Amino acid sequence: MDILFSDITVITMDDGNPVLKRGYVGVKGRKVAYVGESPPAEKASRVINGARRLLMPGLINAHTHMPMTLLRGYADDYKLQEWLFEHIFPAEEKLDAHCVMLGTQLALAECIRSGTISCTDMYFHTDKVAEAVDEAGMKANIDKPMFCLDMSQYDFEKQPFTHETRMTLAGYKNRDDGRIIINAGIHAEYTSGPQAWRDVVAFAHENDLRINLHLSETKTEHDDCVKKHGKTPTERFLEAGVFSRKVTAAHCVWLTDSDMKILAGHGASAAHCPTSNLKLSSGTARVTEMQKAGINVALGTDGVCSNNSHDMFEAIKTAALFQKYITNDPTSLPALEALKLATVNGALSQGRENETGKIAAGFDADLIMLNMDAPHLTPVYDPIASVVYSARGSDVCMTMVQGRTLYENGEYKTIDVERVTAEIEEYVLPRVLGV
Amino acid sequence: MDILFSDITVITMDDGNPVLKRGYVGVKGRKVAYVGESPPAEKASRVINGARRLLMPGLINAHTHMPMTLLRGYADDYKLQEWLFEHIFPAEEKLDAHCVMLGTQLALAECIRSGTISCTDMYFHTDKVAEAVDEAGMKANIDKPMFCLDMSQYDFEKQPFTHETRMTLAGYKNRDDGRIIINAGIHAEYTSGPQAWRDVVAFAHENDLRINLHLSETKTEHDDCVKKHGKTPTERFLEAGVFSRKVTAAHCVWLTDSDMKILAGHGASAAHCPTSNLKLSSGTARVTEMQKAGINVALGTDGVCSNNSHDMFEAIKTAALFQKYITNDPTSLPALEALKLATVNGALSQGRENETGKIAAGFDADLIMLNMDAPHLTPVYDPIASVVYSARGSDVCMTMVQGRTLYENGEYKTIDVERVTAEIEEYVLPRVLGV
Repeated sequence: MDILFSDITVITMDDGNPVLKRGYVGVKGRKVAYVGESPPAEKASRVINGARRLLMPGLINAHTHMPMTLLRGYADDYKLQEWLFEHIFPAEEKLDAHCVMLGTQLALAECIRSGTISCTDMYFHTDKVAEAVDEAGMKANIDKPMFCLDMSQYDFEKQPFTHETRMTLAGYKNRDDGRIIINAGIHAEYTSGPQAWRDVVAFAHENDLRINLHLSETKTEHDDCVKKHGKTPTERFLEAGVFSRKVTAAHCVWLTDSDMKILAGHGASAAHCPTSNLKLSSGTARVTEMQKAGINVALGTDGVCSNNSHDMFEAIKTAALFQKYITNDPTSLPALEALKLATVNGALSQGRENETGKIAAGFDADLIMLNMDAPHLTPVYDPIASVVYSARGSDVCMTMVQGRTLYENGEYKTIDVERVTAEIEEYVLPRVLGV
Repeated sequence: MDILFSDITVITMDDGNPVLKRGYVGVKGRKVAYVGESPPAEKASRVINGARRLLMPGLINAHTHMPMTLLRGYADDYKLQEWLFEHIFPAEEKLDAHCVMLGTQLALAECIRSGTISCTDMYFHTDKVAEAVDEAGMKANIDKPMFCLDMSQYDFEKQPFTHETRMTLAGYKNRDDGRIIINAGIHAEYTSGPQAWRDVVAFAHENDLRINLHLSETKTEHDDCVKKHGKTPTERFLEAGVFSRKVTAAHCVWLTDSDMKILAGHGASAAHCPTSNLKLSSGTARVTEMQKAGINVALGTDGVCSNNSHDMFEAIKTAALFQKYITNDPTSLPALEALKLATVNGALSQGRENETGKIAAGFDADLIMLNMDAPHLTPVYDPIASVVYSARGSDVCMTMVQGRTLYENGEYKTIDVERVTAEIEEYVLPRVLGV
C-alpha cells in the first residue's frame, strides 16, 4: 500500500454507509485499495494521521469555463445582455491560446486548492485547456462547443468545433485511463441550428462521445425559442437526436415538466449552477422537481465571471439554501443530498460513475482531506452537515487524483502558481485592459 | 505612529473615495491616525508591507447569537417549529453559564479569524458573553432579551431581562470607550406583550440604551399577529413606544410597505440575515425596497444553527446574490452597496457610525487585512468586487480592534482556541448529547 489514511473521519458517499466516524483508507497506485473501520493488514509506505481531519471524495464541478478566471471581477452587476455583449465577449476576443492556457492553469490551481478533482469545461483553444489539465494531473471532460450564429454559412468541416474536437481527441483520448475525456459540445439552442446539432450527434456517435450543452438558462432564451419554433429548446434538441447520446445540460432553469420527462427518459444530467443563476437573475432551477422526475442533477459553478469563484463547497451550500427557499421547505435538499450533487451525481454526469464520486475499493483514489481543526468547523455532530453548511474550499489540506497528490498544506505539486500569476499580470491583463 | 500599512490596496468605504489602489494607513494607539495615497511624514514603530494585501474596515455582524456555535450542525434540515421546539430549545436548556462562555469564545475566535470586529448579540448568561467579548478584545452590542410567554405572570422586577441587563450594564457600560455596548433586548412580538415592551422602553430611556429585537421573521409569526391583534408586529411595537429608542430589527422578512415607513421614520435599522432566511425558508427580505424606503439595512449571520457559519464574507455575497434573484435584476445590491451592509450600515445599526465601519483618520483602528496572493483572488480588476464576490473569511490574515491585533497569520492573540475546543469537547458535548 502506498498511503494509508489512518483513524480518520471518512465520508464515503456509499449508499449503505456514507460516513465512517473512525475509518481507514488505503491507496495503491491510482486506486483506493482498502476502506474499513479497522486498520488493514497490509503496511503502507506513508501513514497519514487522521486526527481532526476528514477524508471525502474529491468534488466534481459539472459546469464551468475555466479560462474565464482571467476575467474574474472584470464586469459585475450588469444586466445579462449588456454583461455578455458589451463586456465579456469583447474581452474574450482578446484572449489568445497562451491566455487560455494561463487562465486554465489559474482555474486548476483554484479548483485543486479547494477540493475539486474534475470539471466539465466548455471553452475555446481546448487543446490548451486539455494540455493544462493534463499537466496539472486533474480530471476533466472538455469540449469546444458548436457555435454558428449564421447557419446559412454553415459547413461542418469548416467549423472550429470540428477541427478542435478532432485535435483534442487525437491528443488526449483515453489519457491515463480516461483522466481526460473529450465531450462533443453544443453551445446552446440559440447559437446554432438543427443541421449543426445532427452533425454533432453523428460525430459523437462515431467517436463515442457525451454531449455537453447549455439549456434553457434564461427566460428570454427559452421563451424566444417557443415563440419562434413552437417548441422548447429541449424539444428541438430531441428532434435533432441530441438525446440519443448521454447529455449534460447546464442550467435547466426554465425546463417545463415535459422537458424534464425528456431529459429523464434519456438518462441526461442537469448541471445546476445556483450561484450563477442567482447572480445573473436567471431564475429558479427546480432541482427537487428535476430529481423527482428522475433527472440526475449535478452541480457546477459556471465560469467565474458569473460567480466569481470555483469553490464547490460554496456551490453545495448555495444549492441547498436556494432549494429550501424556492420550495418554502427547509427539509428540501438536505445535507447528504446536496453533497451528492457534487460527488456521485457529478461523476454520473461525466460518465465516471464507476471510477470516482465515492470512496470505495477499486475506485480511483480521487480524494480530498479537510483540516477540521478550526473554530468555524467546531464542534462536529454530523460530518456531512459540517461539510455542507460550514466548510469551505480553504479547509482542504490535501487533494489527490488517481493516487497522485496535487496539493498538500499550501504546496501545489503540479502547477507553478507564482509563474502563472506573474504571466497573467504581464501577458493577459495588458491585453484585456487594452493598455 | 505605532503601525503603518504601507503601499497597500485600501478599501476605505469613504463616500468620496472608497478605494485607494495604493494607499498608506497609520495607526496610533486605538485610532487611525493617517490615511493617504503617499507615505506619512511620521515614522512608525512597525511597517507592514502591503504587497498583494488589501486593507479594509473590519466587518460588523448585526445579528447573531454567539453561544449557539455550541450547536453548530446539531439539527439541520428540519421544519422551523420542529427545529426550534424539538431540537434547539431542549438543547439550549442544557447550557449553563460556563457553556455560554465557551460558546461565545468559540464564536469570537471564528469571527476574529474571518474579519468580524463587532457583533450585535442576543442570548442569555450575557454577563458571560460580555466577559468573553471583553477578554477577546472585540466589540459587541449585547443584550439579554425580554422574553415572557405568560404575561399574566409578568413582573418587570422579576424578569431575567431586568436583572441581567442591570448586571451587564454595571460591569461593562463604557468599557474601553464603548467597545462593549449593552442593548435593551426584546426577543420578539410573539414572546412577550405591550406592558413588557413599555417597561423595556422606559428602562432603555433611563439608561440611554438602543433596542435590539426580532421582527417579522416568518410569515406565520407576522400573520398570526395581524389575525390576533389587527396590527402588524411593527405597529404593535410602535404603539408601545419601542421606536422612540433607536431600534435594530433582525430579519424584517415580512414587513409591509407601511411597516417600512415606520422603521424609516424612526431611524431604525434592519439586520438582514440572508443565509438564515434561506436555510429556514423564512421568505424574502426586500432589502432594496427597505433601502428605498429609507431604512438603514445592516447584515447579520444569525446564530450558526441556522447558517452554519459566522463568515460575514459569505453573508455579503449571499445578500448580493439573493437580492439580484428576488428583484430579477442583476444590478440590484451591487458590490459596493453589499459591502456597505457589513461596514458603514452595520456601524450605524450599532450606534458606532462615528467610530467604525470606515477607514478614516480619527476613527477606531478596527481594521482587517486580506492576503490576496491566492488563485481564487486573481486577478483583481476591482478590489470591491474581489472582496464581495471572491473573498471569504479565510483570506483574512490580520484582524485589529482599537489598534490591538487580535489575530495575525494563524495566531489568535487573545483567545486560547485549543483550550476552548478541548473544554467544549469535555464539558459541553456530553451535556448536549446527554451521554
